[in-house]
Amino acid sequence: MFTHSTKIRVRYGETDQMGYVYYGRYAEYFEAGRVEALRSIGISYKKLEEQGIMMPVLNLQVNYYMPLFYDEEVTVQVTIPELPTIRIKFLYKVFNAAGELTADGETTLLFVDAFTRKPIRMPAEVIAALEPHYKS
Amino acid sequence: MFTHSTKIRVRYGETDQMGYVYYGRYAEYFEAGRVEALRSIGISYKKLEEQGIMMPVLNLQVNYYMPLFYDEEVTVQVTIPELPTIRIKFLYKVFNAAGELTADGETTLLFVDAFTRKPIRMPAEVIAALEPHYKS
Amino acid sequence: MFTHSTKIRVRYGETDQMGYVYYGRYAEYFEAGRVEALRSIGISYKKLEEQGIMMPVLNLQVNYYMPLFYDEEVTVQVTIPELPTIRIKFLYKVFNAAGELTADGETTLLFVDAFTRKPIRMPAEVIAALEPHYKS
Amino acid sequence: MFTHSTKIRVRYGETDQMGYVYYGRYAEYFEAGRVEALRSIGISYKKLEEQGIMMPVLNLQVNYYMPLFYDEEVTVQVTIPELPTIRIKFLYKVFNAAGELTADGETTLLFVDAFTRKPIRMPAEVIAALEPHYKS
Repeated sequence: MFTHSTKIRVRYGETDQMGYVYYGRYAEYFEAGRVEALRSIGISYKKLEEQGIMMPVLNLQVNYYMPLFYDEEVTVQVTIPELPTIRIKFLYKVFNAAGELTADGETTLLFVDAFTRKPIRMPAEVIAALEPHYKS
Repeated sequence: MFTHSTKIRVRYGETDQMGYVYYGRYAEYFEAGRVEALRSIGISYKKLEEQGIMMPVLNLQVNYYMPLFYDEEVTVQVTIPELPTIRIKFLYKVFNAAGELTADGETTLLFVDAFTRKPIRMPAEVIAALEPHYKS
Repeated sequence: MFTHSTKIRVRYGETDQMGYVYYGRYAEYFEAGRVEALRSIGISYKKLEEQGIMMPVLNLQVNYYMPLFYDEEVTVQVTIPELPTIRIKFLYKVFNAAGELTADGETTLLFVDAFTRKPIRMPAEVIAALEPHYKS
Repeated sequence: MFTHSTKIRVRYGETDQMGYVYYGRYAEYFEAGRVEALRSIGISYKKLEEQGIMMPVLNLQVNYYMPLFYDEEVTVQVTIPELPTIRIKFLYKVFNAAGELTADGETTLLFVDAFTRKPIRMPAEVIAALEPHYKS
């Protein structure tokens, strides 16, 4: 199982008038977290796109337990729970500066041919990068 | 059961370089939809806040079936499936200009005292506005 | 001189913890306003892009006089002060629900070939649509 | 004169379908840059707010010279050109990963009492932190 953590500083523009990070902004935090998780094992999402592979999101789920506040340094912990094939699932845990779990969630993404926009199998380099983490 | 639809025009800044509406932006569309749904039965979320009642989001779920594109006039259909008490659940269906279901999802919100930030029961005026839609 | 007004409802996610619309969000309001201004004279920015013409922004200026608040119905008044050639300048005035001028600003955009990303002259259809408004 | 640089990684959600960072997003980059600039001299904007001091933006100016792309590590260089009194001016230069100047701009902010929302003089601690940088 592969897990990676990224730190994100909450921006003012990400708060709303409740004084909390707006609930829709978590999607950006999740995105930043999973991109860094992939980068940590040598996979650049930017390069995948340049090679003609896109990864649209199929679903998003977020559970909000405690608010996040302006200027907090948030930790987004990303886990890929199983070796993906066509779809890739990411699990997220969001911790505040005090180390409390403030939210969790998941997204499922698809590998898609950027030209045809049709689903394709997971690229070989992604398999190669992930496989060592799932060996029994 | 109460259902209401709102039209939203996709802004350029809501698209991403895939040429689709960014997946995190749906939270804003859902928010706009549920605020208009409440307004249609005489409830102003702004006034609730002025009276000291906030409605933070407890969870968010979105399923993306087809992309939304720049400048499309999108319909966000909001349903409150049951008469709420402490929590209020909203279901969403997002239709594109061609009338196709492109996404659906749900959110659960809590009624909270703006000062203590503790959960409270649903305000009487919200009950009064919703009840007629759930009478047997 | 050509002027057009668009109404925009402030979303919750557009506010920040000061309780005002976040200053960066005005760029989206300006964008929505100028797209509707062009649409009102028969020009679809979406169709321009489909024909291979893009309009990147060269500069943005905003002066903030009074805050905008959640749920306000804002009016974005857009003026094209002169018949454009290569660059097109838009002036903006943002009025709150009480009709007060809360902000003004301007943007200059360029016509660019979407393939080469090089500047091009203003498309004939845009000239044709605008010209009647600047005849002496 | 005081200058400070901050690195920001471009998120996917910050791009638009032109494949560039959306022009309105620069306001968030500027905000992140100036907050880090103040932090580097011991001033926490978050703490200022907790002490009842807010800093709304009076004006924003951005000149876009070259696009910024997804996943680029951008440098936001912030300069406070003169010792402020009631208003504080920030100048920005945005460099891409290749070190090219892609945009510049400025904002002017006001010090405001969070309760009355009226302008106040610059707090003593901000003066004390900035003054050494402007001594002749």
